[in-house]
Amino acid sequence: MTYKTDIEIARDAQKRPIQEIGAKLGIGAEDLLPYGHDKAKVSQSFINSVQDRPNGKLVLVTAINPTPAGEGKTTTTVGLGDGLNRIGKKAAICIREASLGPNFGMKGGAAGGGLAQVVPMEDMNLHFTGDFHAITSAHNLLSAMIDNHIYWGNELEIDIRRIVWRRVLDMNDRALRQITASLGGVANGFPRETGFDITVASEVMAILCLARDLADLQERLGNMIVAYRRDRSPVFCRDIKADGAMTVLLKDAMQPNLVQTLENNPAFVHGGPFANIAHGCNSVTATTTALKIADYVVTEAGFGADLGAEKFMNIKCRKAGLAPDAVVLVATVRAMKMNGGVAKADLGEENVAAVEAGCPNLGRHLANLKSFGVPVVVAINHFVTDTEAEVKAVQDYIAAQGAEAIECRHWAMGSEGIEDLARKVVELAEGGTSAFAPLYPDDMPLMKKVETIAKRIYHADAVLADKSVRNQLAAWEEQGYGHLPICMAKTQYSFSTDPNLRGAPTGHSVPIREVRLSAGAGFVVVICGEIMTMPGLPRIPSAESIRLNDDGQIEGLF
Amino acid sequence: MTYKTDIEIARDAQKRPIQEIGAKLGIGAEDLLPYGHDKAKVSQSFINSVQDRPNGKLVLVTAINPTPAGEGKTTTTVGLGDGLNRIGKKAAICIREASLGPNFGMKGGAAGGGLAQVVPMEDMNLHFTGDFHAITSAHNLLSAMIDNHIYWGNELEIDIRRIVWRRVLDMNDRALRQITASLGGVANGFPRETGFDITVASEVMAILCLARDLADLQERLGNMIVAYRRDRSPVFCRDIKADGAMTVLLKDAMQPNLVQTLENNPAFVHGGPFANIAHGCNSVTATTTALKIADYVVTEAGFGADLGAEKFMNIKCRKAGLAPDAVVLVATVRAMKMNGGVAKADLGEENVAAVEAGCPNLGRHLANLKSFGVPVVVAINHFVTDTEAEVKAVQDYIAAQGAEAIECRHWAMGSEGIEDLARKVVELAEGGTSAFAPLYPDDMPLMKKVETIAKRIYHADAVLADKSVRNQLAAWEEQGYGHLPICMAKTQYSFSTDPNLRGAPTGHSVPIREVRLSAGAGFVVVICGEIMTMPGLPRIPSAESIRLNDDGQIEGLF
Repeated sequence: MTYKTDIEIARDAQKRPIQEIGAKLGIGAEDLLPYGHDKAKVSQSFINSVQDRPNGKLVLVTAINPTPAGEGKTTTTVGLGDGLNRIGKKAAICIREASLGPNFGMKGGAAGGGLAQVVPMEDMNLHFTGDFHAITSAHNLLSAMIDNHIYWGNELEIDIRRIVWRRVLDMNDRALRQITASLGGVANGFPRETGFDITVASEVMAILCLARDLADLQERLGNMIVAYRRDRSPVFCRDIKADGAMTVLLKDAMQPNLVQTLENNPAFVHGGPFANIAHGCNSVTATTTALKIADYVVTEAGFGADLGAEKFMNIKCRKAGLAPDAVVLVATVRAMKMNGGVAKADLGEENVAAVEAGCPNLGRHLANLKSFGVPVVVAINHFVTDTEAEVKAVQDYIAAQGAEAIECRHWAMGSEGIEDLARKVVELAEGGTSAFAPLYPDDMPLMKKVETIAKRIYHADAVLADKSVRNQLAAWEEQGYGHLPICMAKTQYSFSTDPNLRGAPTGHSVPIREVRLSAGAGFVVVICGEIMTMPGLPRIPSAESIRLNDDGQIEGLF
Repeated sequence: MTYKTDIEIARDAQKRPIQEIGAKLGIGAEDLLPYGHDKAKVSQSFINSVQDRPNGKLVLVTAINPTPAGEGKTTTTVGLGDGLNRIGKKAAICIREASLGPNFGMKGGAAGGGLAQVVPMEDMNLHFTGDFHAITSAHNLLSAMIDNHIYWGNELEIDIRRIVWRRVLDMNDRALRQITASLGGVANGFPRETGFDITVASEVMAILCLARDLADLQERLGNMIVAYRRDRSPVFCRDIKADGAMTVLLKDAMQPNLVQTLENNPAFVHGGPFANIAHGCNSVTATTTALKIADYVVTEAGFGADLGAEKFMNIKCRKAGLAPDAVVLVATVRAMKMNGGVAKADLGEENVAAVEAGCPNLGRHLANLKSFGVPVVVAINHFVTDTEAEVKAVQDYIAAQGAEAIECRHWAMGSEGIEDLARKVVELAEGGTSAFAPLYPDDMPLMKKVETIAKRIYHADAVLADKSVRNQLAAWEEQGYGHLPICMAKTQYSFSTDPNLRGAPTGHSVPIREVRLSAGAGFVVVICGEIMTMPGLPRIPSAESIRLNDDGQIEGLF
């Protein structure tokens, strides 16, 4: 059997006009702001009109620590949405938007895969509805206004050595990581060091994804700290008077984008914050809107459950007043084998012992997720080389942990291949067993919150932090930021801070390198290891082979 | 009598769905790619389908040298389009898109004014359909790929001191005019000086506006010179292999945008190159498409006729094979008075003598335009303080030059106020008297072309150029660029290079400061004076007062 590639499948998609997709959720054509015939934004007035409705069920899809074998988290999210629709539930999915820049480095990303994809794939990987461009503009307007303020006299007494607000571009451009700006003489300002991050790393992105509405957006933008004075007192975005104009630039970007799956079911694709220095979830507005108009909303969080689900629970759910009714933990036999020590080249061989040896990584994520008080089911995302014995090994392991692991074939079969998981999710969500609670209360001291995550989620023995880090956290507590949740930035490849430590390590410690305050987004970023906020291009960037073919189709992007 | 502000009028606009506007030109709903309910791009397949049709009549609206009094060129363009529709002609207008960045510096720009406006004004002054963002992305992808090429070994042997391709942002940000990039060590590349221009100054913008189709776009992008080697040989965009991916990024941006006037007539708003270092006209694709589906296409060119119309004729018409059937030269009594020496504060007083003293500026533009072989009519854009005697003074002056000056009241009255001009334009265009020819042939030497423009259009005595400039022009001729037209970059406020020299100066000379080759756009830029390609923000940027009001409307942008 030969399979079509993702892009071939996507190109063959029998897309329905976006108005038909909206109608499935009761959104009238007048409340859809179309972008072409297959994309639309949902109007603010419609969003306002549904606020008093009860919420549907919220399902989080998360995964084990990612391996080079691939787990298929987004594919499963899309497949489950289709599966729920197949068994008669009005379901919508909520996923993140793709960043433009990285597509020109490595081969670009689809939204899902196989028969579980969201379309139009090309648009979603290019400019889509312009949300990220709006974020870039809003971010850089603030940057320009800061330097402009200094140029015209610096009434706020900003210390130009302590400006923490950089600039952004949605481009992989290592040359901009560190620059000296305002060179060239008096007319160009005061020379100073600064640099660019990629747009998805902007605090504006995190804020857009956490803000409840435009008023909340402006409030949060105003709260951002952009610089410090010589006396270390903070200068806020509000002091620069940029928050109003930034909100105007972000007005349309705040409205969720509606597209469709290959099976013509509704998919909200909105927001895309970094999953390390930010919380890595799609927008609150998309999720809360979808919950008002769908019976089931299936969403996902970035990276593995130790980072993504933890932040989904402790940041997004806490801030937005959400509670997941069920969690799907995605694993693959191949990934279990890699956790069990098998090299990528040997993944095609049956190896039940390696599967069993890798299962503890899955088991720990399962236990962690349960500790949030939510019912969890494991999805084994089927791959063609999986053997029955290998699948059974995973299922037996999970059964021994008191849960169920269900094999899913949505990649090859679409919704038909994921009916069992859909039924199980409905059983869990409607069983009323969810008793969700975040891992730590707001009023726990910041350092204690970090330790709670490190011990309860990472199963580390200790958190290591210099005095300067501890002092900084204490200072923020004094300044009134002690109630904020923690946003951990560590490797996604391990429970520990060592990317090579697979499985379910114990006895490790979590060294904190640096802490940052995202006062607008509303979290404290705790950085454990190298975090790259501006990627570079590889030796042969995929851009070199991206082009339009003679039929006007895009080649080389996927 | 009190008048509403432009923004109040625009907000009260009775917009029709964009599909209705498209239908007026025979564009079916399936061939309109909507952006919201009031904006759309015209599909490439529709554009392809009308190529064999005959062209409608092309009318250029240009103006005297701009004064602080304002002339109302765009207002007249919009009004004339409405006026032609009013008298039964199927007319469309073609104007440029607005740049986002400058709106956050000074109060932003409307598209037209009074009852002669294009809507939706807010969107057009913000992200619109994302064309400029696409240009920013495409430009900066090339920038990143150049530095990336050097980082990975510099196989092309680029001299990092001679990289001429900078970066762009659609933002007024003086801090980025001159920077040192690639700082921070080995992983970030080789430190070098560079900087950012505003997006509208990008050669990519000029190319988008001159390209006939996507294949031509890619060809021109590939032709751009991005750097030189130590032996001074050029390195092209094509060598960097960025042209294909840039074309993919610009695919949608190449499709003309359709919006509407306040009177619900079709308006194409597409492209917006700088009017000094580029040619300052809307896109060739918009103009040529409009000509296939409308009886009359009214378009405009940047700045006064000495710069804008000259480039429209010698660059855009030459390259696109267009020929204007009639030209409208816009003037105001107030501007005549300023040319006649009256200060702005005193413009409200009747002063016939000053009007007469200022008329030679208008007269010279009229004579210049006639020298292209096209019939010309003068439009006196009425202002409330104009007196009958003042208007008559202009009309008498123009009559003595063998032309007609028609008073227009479209600002206050809409199409009803501009019927006379519309009828005159039809008379001229259908009179068949146009015998358009560019000012100089392709095969004239570059320096001779500059002299031709300087003497015939600016009425200067001489062109002053250093040996280095002359050598550079000669070198380009040897390299095969001698056939290119000239793109003059000089002050728009005077026929001369001295912005304070109003009226119709003689005896002046044109000193060339610098020449630049835009090998992709296909012209040689001749710079006479300071040209700012990255504006700064003023002491109190308008961004400080731009915000959403309680009704969700944008305040402070206009």
